[in-house]
Amino acid sequence: MSQFRSFLPILHWGRTYSRAALTNDLVAAVVVTIMLIPQSLAYALLAGLPPETGIYASIAPIVLYAMFGTSRALAVGPVAVVSLLTASAIGQVAEQGTAGYAVAALTLAFLSGGFLVLLGVFRLGMLANFLSHPVIAGFITASGILIATSQMKHILGVNAQGHTLPEMLWSLFAHLPELNWITLVIGVATTAFLFWVRGNLKPLLSRLGSGPLLMDLLSKGGPVLAVLATTFAVWGLGLAEQGVRIVGEVPQSLPPFTLPGLSWDLVEALLVPAILISIIGFVESVSVAQTLAAKKRQRIDPDQELIGLGAANLGAAFTGGFPVTGGFSRSMVNFDAGAQTPAAGIFTAFGLAVAAVALTPLVFFLPKATLAATIIVAVLSLVDLSILKKTWSYSLADFVAVAATILLTLSLGVEVGVASGVAISVLLHLYKTSRPHVAEVGLVPGTQHFRNINRHNVETAPTLVTLRVDESLYFVNARFLEDLIQARVTEGCEVRDVVLMFSAVNAVDYSALESLEAINARLLDMGVGLHLSEVKGPVMDRLGRSHFLEHLNGQVFLSQFDAWTHLQPKPAPRAAE
Amino acid sequence: MSQFRSFLPILHWGRTYSRAALTNDLVAAVVVTIMLIPQSLAYALLAGLPPETGIYASIAPIVLYAMFGTSRALAVGPVAVVSLLTASAIGQVAEQGTAGYAVAALTLAFLSGGFLVLLGVFRLGMLANFLSHPVIAGFITASGILIATSQMKHILGVNAQGHTLPEMLWSLFAHLPELNWITLVIGVATTAFLFWVRGNLKPLLSRLGSGPLLMDLLSKGGPVLAVLATTFAVWGLGLAEQGVRIVGEVPQSLPPFTLPGLSWDLVEALLVPAILISIIGFVESVSVAQTLAAKKRQRIDPDQELIGLGAANLGAAFTGGFPVTGGFSRSMVNFDAGAQTPAAGIFTAFGLAVAAVALTPLVFFLPKATLAATIIVAVLSLVDLSILKKTWSYSLADFVAVAATILLTLSLGVEVGVASGVAISVLLHLYKTSRPHVAEVGLVPGTQHFRNINRHNVETAPTLVTLRVDESLYFVNARFLEDLIQARVTEGCEVRDVVLMFSAVNAVDYSALESLEAINARLLDMGVGLHLSEVKGPVMDRLGRSHFLEHLNGQVFLSQFDAWTHLQPKPAPRAAE
Repeated sequence: MSQFRSFLPILHWGRTYSRAALTNDLVAAVVVTIMLIPQSLAYALLAGLPPETGIYASIAPIVLYAMFGTSRALAVGPVAVVSLLTASAIGQVAEQGTAGYAVAALTLAFLSGGFLVLLGVFRLGMLANFLSHPVIAGFITASGILIATSQMKHILGVNAQGHTLPEMLWSLFAHLPELNWITLVIGVATTAFLFWVRGNLKPLLSRLGSGPLLMDLLSKGGPVLAVLATTFAVWGLGLAEQGVRIVGEVPQSLPPFTLPGLSWDLVEALLVPAILISIIGFVESVSVAQTLAAKKRQRIDPDQELIGLGAANLGAAFTGGFPVTGGFSRSMVNFDAGAQTPAAGIFTAFGLAVAAVALTPLVFFLPKATLAATIIVAVLSLVDLSILKKTWSYSLADFVAVAATILLTLSLGVEVGVASGVAISVLLHLYKTSRPHVAEVGLVPGTQHFRNINRHNVETAPTLVTLRVDESLYFVNARFLEDLIQARVTEGCEVRDVVLMFSAVNAVDYSALESLEAINARLLDMGVGLHLSEVKGPVMDRLGRSHFLEHLNGQVFLSQFDAWTHLQPKPAPRAAE
Repeated sequence: MSQFRSFLPILHWGRTYSRAALTNDLVAAVVVTIMLIPQSLAYALLAGLPPETGIYASIAPIVLYAMFGTSRALAVGPVAVVSLLTASAIGQVAEQGTAGYAVAALTLAFLSGGFLVLLGVFRLGMLANFLSHPVIAGFITASGILIATSQMKHILGVNAQGHTLPEMLWSLFAHLPELNWITLVIGVATTAFLFWVRGNLKPLLSRLGSGPLLMDLLSKGGPVLAVLATTFAVWGLGLAEQGVRIVGEVPQSLPPFTLPGLSWDLVEALLVPAILISIIGFVESVSVAQTLAAKKRQRIDPDQELIGLGAANLGAAFTGGFPVTGGFSRSMVNFDAGAQTPAAGIFTAFGLAVAAVALTPLVFFLPKATLAATIIVAVLSLVDLSILKKTWSYSLADFVAVAATILLTLSLGVEVGVASGVAISVLLHLYKTSRPHVAEVGLVPGTQHFRNINRHNVETAPTLVTLRVDESLYFVNARFLEDLIQARVTEGCEVRDVVLMFSAVNAVDYSALESLEAINARLLDMGVGLHLSEVKGPVMDRLGRSHFLEHLNGQVFLSQFDAWTHLQPKPAPRAAE
């Protein structure tokens, strides 16, 4: 039963649901619903899909996540980066506006959901760790720039396209003569208004003495106000006839039951993007969930999160949606508005369902420029070039990874960008460990401590070389150690014993074992002994499984001081006086 | 001048060349020349090239390596694995026997040489370390099996082909009706004879009382005897008319001056194979050179070896050869026969040049089956499946890497095999470090030492958790630590302080820094302090470049014992008695 409950967390919190929690959850649901209506329409536009799919993608997924997810405040639905990845992936297999395009979106959500569930069942959430923080930060920043640029066509009212920054800019430039001035005015005014709401409205309301909840509602409702105002303007002034593009007819319906396309060609084409979307969505979602959970000393289970997000995506695939994940801004709003349990999500879904049935006719005259402005204001907060400065001052390798990810994402597209980022960070990591820090150490006089002979004033013995290896030994650095010891020993002919101090060696793989054997054999040929000291338990166990210790032309000392006293040439006995 | 000399090692040993060294080098050269004549012809056959190219590939490369290389005994020329890789690479761009095929071989040698020189100039020999020992061992074993199988067609006298084991076996089976019985007899008898020479001749000669040098000459001359006997048989009995395939006409000439083809298509198709050949050849050669150097307490410089091998390959490209590297068996023979300096190589080249001019007509009737037998006997010593057993008992990850490399090389070919092997070993390494060993430690009573609470009887405090992290922190394991700490702290509500003991943390990358910041922020939200202890100098320097230490909700203690004494709750003062 407890096993079952850990797979279906709703059974856990649902049994102790209180009236107080109900009130809090309902209030949060109202705030989030108001925020989500324009946001859902906008992200559908970003993904290149009909506006209603954005709302559909927020209903079933929220409910399914509430049942299977472990975060109490995470709000699941379309988010900017995943919508961009969706547009990029399905743009390669179908034309925007065709039925095939919508089906491809369902397939992508289905594959992504299936992959997430699979990872969750096999508890492979650690795969997400291959995305380093700098790569994610660089990727999200570059995506923000790409998304904002992609929306410029709606602000200008032109037909540009492209999936990379140069393509988009060139296409915008080429289509500039089609510029629609009224659209531009609406777009720029809405953008300016939304920036003002974000930055200045809350302090203003606060001065006017409104309560915190009302303040929240009003400031989160900025996009709703913009939607209402611009829709009204377009309708009242008949701007649609003057070329201002509008959302148009949106069906009044609950989410439909849909089937993802599962032809082999489609699945093959979308599998890699689906995996990418899953992992990026998971990383984004888990970091939001962890941040929120920590604030209340709660805990999330990353492997169960995979199941929750997987279920949400499968839900999206069968109810006319597209790939979803846990979003930062909506989750923050949900948390700040006081959501206590995932029931808040279920109420939000109900609110959106009502909107889908009742409110869709109201957005007929909504200009696309307004939605584009909403997106631009939302994603510009993702763009954070300070990561370049931070990594620059901290470590060159991390800086290179960020810079390469940003440049490649902007110039070659999201998929190449993130894949190269991962490859580069793995290679740089291996490169860093390929030349481990190896210090030649000597005895600090009067103690039993050994320190670097280049940094400290220590005792050494001419026939004894002690090297402290500050890294686990594995194939990438095994040969480095071989070369280093060969070089050190052939330097002078006095060396009779080499001690490797293994206090910071956490592992020795088979390549390193063979290197140690080669070092041992070569030193034996030269008549030099090889000894180890301060070997950790697990490393010693591992070495014991091979024949290395039997063939070792020397000893294993428990402490470096033992090695020192034992291998020191005995002082010649003094002549009797 | 010393800079210049390190680039041209011949200036170093050449100036002190003695008469004694001359004698030794001359003797070694005679032994090696006798061994190389049939071997060179055989490896040309393996690469799918005319027999004389094998001899050409042994002349200029030996001389160039003698000038630029740092090993005193390494013998450079065609070797089995590189010849197999050559056949596989150029088989994809040209038909065997055409002029295009020979030109492609020159191009491959040129690209490979250029790449090696480039790596050498930028001192990037460490790239070779990405090939782990198990991957190399698995690859060489699988190559040995592929090579032996590829020669079966010559032993059977049929026209089989294919680059993978299933292709070859199927093709042999399909062509079995063409079997030539006389060829089979020659092939099998030669193979048996060569195995006998290898295993039994030396002990026999030793019992008969021959001197060691003669013994060496005779036992290394086994292939020469086989060549002479079978050539004579084919000529005397007119077996060529009965369908026994022979080497045929070989031009009597010094190595010709040739130009590699450098059309863009050819270069593009051969670039990746050339890089692969360079790295595999380099790894094989360096390990031979290091083994031999160690026996005389000499040293080789891996980066200068890149230059030496690069020059050798460039030489091969301009003198009608194909890719070469330092071979194990020829170098061992050279070393055992007493070669003291690279001059032995120069004399060997001279011997081979004489052979190319004077002896080539003698091999007209040499059956290809004899050469195939030479190859089979040579490569079967490469096949060493014991690596599977050794890695199995030592470490699962290494076993998986070997097994995958062997299976993929046999079933999908050499290029896929070695590339997958590298990818698998990198992924497994990252996986292993992704869940580092983290021990919760307590104080060993009466000491200042801290040990794992699960293994030792130690003192702990309910409000203080100390975790010793046994791995460098980087992106792949950063989140693991986040989850682990969150889990440990939310377990009970008493925890007031967490200490991370960093004695085995050799590095903290930017992702890990951000994870530490996240851990700090979350613990702060929970009212728990975060402290570090025993941080290494370089790690502390690095952390100092960020704002982490300023925001740390706790302290950095020099020793874990300091942390323990400082963070212990003070015992309640006793009531006055």
